[in-house]
Amino acid sequence: MAANTLGTLFRVTNFGESHGPAIGAVVDGCPPGLALSEADIQYELDRRRPGTSRHVTQRQEADQVEILSGVYEGKTTGAPISLLIRNTDARSKDYGNILDTFRPGHADFAYWKKYGIRDPRGGGRSSARLTAPTVAAGAIAKKWLAEHFQVRIRGYMSQLGPIVIPFQSWDAVNENAFYAPNAEVVPELEAYMDALRKDGDSIGARIEVVAENVPTGLGEPVYGRMDAEIAYAMMGLNAVKGVEIGAGFESVSQRGSEHGDAIYPEGFATNHAGGILGGITTGQNIEVSLAIKPTSSIRIKRPSVNLHNEPVEVQTLGRHDPCVGIRATPIAESLLAIVIMDQLLRQRGQCGDIGLTR
Amino acid sequence: MAANTLGTLFRVTNFGESHGPAIGAVVDGCPPGLALSEADIQYELDRRRPGTSRHVTQRQEADQVEILSGVYEGKTTGAPISLLIRNTDARSKDYGNILDTFRPGHADFAYWKKYGIRDPRGGGRSSARLTAPTVAAGAIAKKWLAEHFQVRIRGYMSQLGPIVIPFQSWDAVNENAFYAPNAEVVPELEAYMDALRKDGDSIGARIEVVAENVPTGLGEPVYGRMDAEIAYAMMGLNAVKGVEIGAGFESVSQRGSEHGDAIYPEGFATNHAGGILGGITTGQNIEVSLAIKPTSSIRIKRPSVNLHNEPVEVQTLGRHDPCVGIRATPIAESLLAIVIMDQLLRQRGQCGDIGLTR
Amino acid sequence: MAANTLGTLFRVTNFGESHGPAIGAVVDGCPPGLALSEADIQYELDRRRPGTSRHVTQRQEADQVEILSGVYEGKTTGAPISLLIRNTDARSKDYGNILDTFRPGHADFAYWKKYGIRDPRGGGRSSARLTAPTVAAGAIAKKWLAEHFQVRIRGYMSQLGPIVIPFQSWDAVNENAFYAPNAEVVPELEAYMDALRKDGDSIGARIEVVAENVPTGLGEPVYGRMDAEIAYAMMGLNAVKGVEIGAGFESVSQRGSEHGDAIYPEGFATNHAGGILGGITTGQNIEVSLAIKPTSSIRIKRPSVNLHNEPVEVQTLGRHDPCVGIRATPIAESLLAIVIMDQLLRQRGQCGDIGLTR
Amino acid sequence: MAANTLGTLFRVTNFGESHGPAIGAVVDGCPPGLALSEADIQYELDRRRPGTSRHVTQRQEADQVEILSGVYEGKTTGAPISLLIRNTDARSKDYGNILDTFRPGHADFAYWKKYGIRDPRGGGRSSARLTAPTVAAGAIAKKWLAEHFQVRIRGYMSQLGPIVIPFQSWDAVNENAFYAPNAEVVPELEAYMDALRKDGDSIGARIEVVAENVPTGLGEPVYGRMDAEIAYAMMGLNAVKGVEIGAGFESVSQRGSEHGDAIYPEGFATNHAGGILGGITTGQNIEVSLAIKPTSSIRIKRPSVNLHNEPVEVQTLGRHDPCVGIRATPIAESLLAIVIMDQLLRQRGQCGDIGLTR
Repeated sequence: MAANTLGTLFRVTNFGESHGPAIGAVVDGCPPGLALSEADIQYELDRRRPGTSRHVTQRQEADQVEILSGVYEGKTTGAPISLLIRNTDARSKDYGNILDTFRPGHADFAYWKKYGIRDPRGGGRSSARLTAPTVAAGAIAKKWLAEHFQVRIRGYMSQLGPIVIPFQSWDAVNENAFYAPNAEVVPELEAYMDALRKDGDSIGARIEVVAENVPTGLGEPVYGRMDAEIAYAMMGLNAVKGVEIGAGFESVSQRGSEHGDAIYPEGFATNHAGGILGGITTGQNIEVSLAIKPTSSIRIKRPSVNLHNEPVEVQTLGRHDPCVGIRATPIAESLLAIVIMDQLLRQRGQCGDIGLTR
Repeated sequence: MAANTLGTLFRVTNFGESHGPAIGAVVDGCPPGLALSEADIQYELDRRRPGTSRHVTQRQEADQVEILSGVYEGKTTGAPISLLIRNTDARSKDYGNILDTFRPGHADFAYWKKYGIRDPRGGGRSSARLTAPTVAAGAIAKKWLAEHFQVRIRGYMSQLGPIVIPFQSWDAVNENAFYAPNAEVVPELEAYMDALRKDGDSIGARIEVVAENVPTGLGEPVYGRMDAEIAYAMMGLNAVKGVEIGAGFESVSQRGSEHGDAIYPEGFATNHAGGILGGITTGQNIEVSLAIKPTSSIRIKRPSVNLHNEPVEVQTLGRHDPCVGIRATPIAESLLAIVIMDQLLRQRGQCGDIGLTR
Repeated sequence: MAANTLGTLFRVTNFGESHGPAIGAVVDGCPPGLALSEADIQYELDRRRPGTSRHVTQRQEADQVEILSGVYEGKTTGAPISLLIRNTDARSKDYGNILDTFRPGHADFAYWKKYGIRDPRGGGRSSARLTAPTVAAGAIAKKWLAEHFQVRIRGYMSQLGPIVIPFQSWDAVNENAFYAPNAEVVPELEAYMDALRKDGDSIGARIEVVAENVPTGLGEPVYGRMDAEIAYAMMGLNAVKGVEIGAGFESVSQRGSEHGDAIYPEGFATNHAGGILGGITTGQNIEVSLAIKPTSSIRIKRPSVNLHNEPVEVQTLGRHDPCVGIRATPIAESLLAIVIMDQLLRQRGQCGDIGLTR
Repeated sequence: MAANTLGTLFRVTNFGESHGPAIGAVVDGCPPGLALSEADIQYELDRRRPGTSRHVTQRQEADQVEILSGVYEGKTTGAPISLLIRNTDARSKDYGNILDTFRPGHADFAYWKKYGIRDPRGGGRSSARLTAPTVAAGAIAKKWLAEHFQVRIRGYMSQLGPIVIPFQSWDAVNENAFYAPNAEVVPELEAYMDALRKDGDSIGARIEVVAENVPTGLGEPVYGRMDAEIAYAMMGLNAVKGVEIGAGFESVSQRGSEHGDAIYPEGFATNHAGGILGGITTGQNIEVSLAIKPTSSIRIKRPSVNLHNEPVEVQTLGRHDPCVGIRATPIAESLLAIVIMDQLLRQRGQCGDIGLTR
């Protein structure tokens, strides 16, 4: 496992800081021959983009992606695909007041301990802005998986703070700012967020991601399992504090006679496994659930210390998402796509068509 | 990420099958100069060993470890440490009745899809028996971390099926068969397990693992974060369906003003972060929680199919743990030790003493 | 080993094509706190740059590097350093005549077999232009190694085609277009190259690289040895067909009593080992020698086939180096710096200060 | 690149010391379904085994391999294949006299600098004995490559010290103790070795390895090239000081019009490329040449120092190969097989059948 690289055969190397000149990713190992344009990637980036509703950060970033390599005459060549996104609206002055203090719950404290370097500009490398390159890379994986195996990866928000959002339809998901799969709950969500913003506070969320038509046989035991790599990718996403596959923590109180999904000639009866048994895909939908913590950058004053370990009160005034969970859905989809893509190429490498056609 | 290898600088390569001649691990990258004997490793293996109470599998395995390399005159040399554990009590006939059928919830279905090979002997490679080499490797990491940084890694069971086990004391943990941190609850646990065994059913559990005295600065963003690698290791453990760090899924309904741990000159006020911010350790305790599903091998008959996709009823008669969660505690501790060890060596590699002494 | 990434802790990911919009590298794992500016990198890039004498390709590329990330207020932060070099003088029309034919000795044939994609623009990814990102990354390693361990890495040309160049002085090296360590031979080299250009032919060369003040103890047996990784990096350089460490192929006819470098309390008497024993550095100079083949793109007509396997005559008219060896010296230095840097960080990770201070 | 692991998808992890209880390898990533028995591996091990003629070390090791995992009912399962070889004839007392001194040209000096640990038993981990696990792993790769792609990998000795051995026939190779492809030269080789043994000295050698029927398209630019990985594997072999692909160092004085292999519809006219262009296989034979230095353990007294850096004379009396090159042929074949196997699986992973069927 490398610091800023995800994957073994399909490898995404992420670079950049929130307030530096640019962010981006190098995607290595994409098979040749995939039709790919900047528009394909931009579509996914726009889903994650800031400034699209009043409930997310008001930073204005076009997040315009440029493909620097790996594509020739509209097709991938097999060479590394370099993706560049320039930062355009980096207002560092917003951060002036937190220059030498640490925000409770924020990574700035940990970065300083690790590197001995303080880059206060918008969280530097720890900013959620660094998920944009992940989304761009995920767009490539999504497209290849859809074209070659009809894999479809979708997500939605199932809970915002105290509000549980019952699943109604996939259609509903893209018709509101929350990726909520239920149009009726949206007014409640909006009211909640409006009140929260007035309080200067932030809130957590729960996200579900589902992959359909995943080939069987993907995942490498004992350690490189599909569920392990999904957990790795998801827990590595900013603000994630919990990951579940299938029944997740409900498994704790389930009996084996209930949890084990009965198999019939026509298929599985249930999906407590979340599409993965023994770390290997079964052909059922992969189902993942994420717990996203509330943003640490809030207007409410919190007790903290400065670089000299003196007590201070910290108040963050920059433009921040009061619920990072709102924009997490397309990112989680991208991560799942990258992991499945990488495992599929590895499976094809080791086993040829055995698992892919069975 | 490699199939059967965990780690980057401190690398554990796991091999073997439940009913083959032997299982084991090659531990590469251990620093030289650590005093290490088979007894050091045996102590941890004995904590995970089957046959130690009536609540776990009655398979009798001494799990005697042999160090084949990497130690000279009682000290590690820096060369790979090869650990061998012979299988001695592999009764394959127990599995006769499941030779060509799939157990609901079991990995045998997925393995067959992946490799096109059917090894019915005790689950072959997917058996929980393959956690023994992980425990052996973890014993080395635990010892080094304790000697060099006074890191202490401990775990306990916090829930068995429907029974929540309130934390009372660490001392209680090692005085019962469940790793329950509360002596008073033990009779209830025993009664529950006795009834379950009579039913021929199995049950899930929740395990907590805590690492104390972890140096600050460990973890590599953007992808190779400490929390990501912990989630990878834990979700890769047999039967785990969920992983939480710190507040975990409770974060979903928390506000930022509550979740973000206030910092005072004397330290953090709370530990919702579970010791990790932005993927990097803060010096607080690392706190991890695992959801363990019920064993799939149960005596109760379940609907399933055979290799020809014909409907069958499956009943598993071999010697199995009715709650794999019971023996999961030392394994989870070992995995956490391995991840911390690897991240610590990587941190020392990239940053020297910056993070380790701050 | 990953396709386009070099290194384990100090990782260089290379991207781009000769005639695409840009080339570059992401350098991950550089320790924090190194003073680094674009000028530091530009100095090394300028040494490799085309168009600097009549003996190299006349393509005019400023090779201006832009640091996109990983540096804050003039110091590295520990985050990935992204380096971007825009292509500015890509005249694809020069290649029109080789659009669907293969140049004998050129990679275009192999690329087409591998990826099923034909990118005829200047060799695409196989172009020697892709060594520029390597040089940029190497500049960072060189600087860090020099500042922390006074490591000095230098190279020179020791043979151009039939002309052996006796070593006279390091000072001479930077005073001619050939990196020849001998001013007196330069007129002969120039005459040779002028005649060669008239012939429309190309020629091979031999390059020597030397690293001084390398700490002892670097290199990881059994496979990840220092000599192995040097050979990997060097043989991976365009046009290299042979690599020697120390006595190299002369060892074949040496006796052990001659080859083994005698050790005296004040140090080694000779350096047939080239600074490496058992794959580990001894503190002596690391000495590497490279065989560089003649460029395959020549004006002389050669028998070949086209994409339809029909016989053709191929003549390459683009702007090419008649001796790629001329510009190979700074590249080989960079590769050696990257390998030493990576091994040093790994050594520090596994062994702390043991090897570095002994 | 990991210390003791070779490969990315087909991974060989090597463990053990010359005079410890055992040596071995874990081979991970072998495709399922390969018929494999201990006899398949033993055949190759016996070719490398010590004690088979008077020209090699007289240590008596059966080198009996045991397959501990990864094979079920005579076929590989896709799980890691663990290979164990017990050491049986480890006479450590032979080394008594070199306990605290360093042999000129030997790795013991470097190991001590690296790890701060002195394991004087037969060179410990640096012993050529550790090539046995490599040979065992290579036997698996060889078998799979032969069955699936008719790849044939063979080697021979082309020079012993001053004696150049002209290639006569492959048949001759296995009929003498030197892997010499020429029966007529054998008496001269024997006489040379007999005289050398009397002198108590050692000698170098040159080895050629050839792979036939290699699929096109194997190798990953920019860094993970086929030639680079071959050089990595070969230079990582004990005592190797030089590696050439194809024309090797002769390329230095070749012109492009000579070196570039002309292509005709029926194939290449020559093979200066050694089967690799731009780091990717062309379908021609891969041709590799190795320089092997003379053994450092000789009876002739050499000036050296002890652990306290005091001057001593060192004489090595243990049982050693006076020419390690003699047993190097099967090892080099194995390394080439492992590298090709790994690249082939990676190619199949990224590109599917594109390169393998073209």
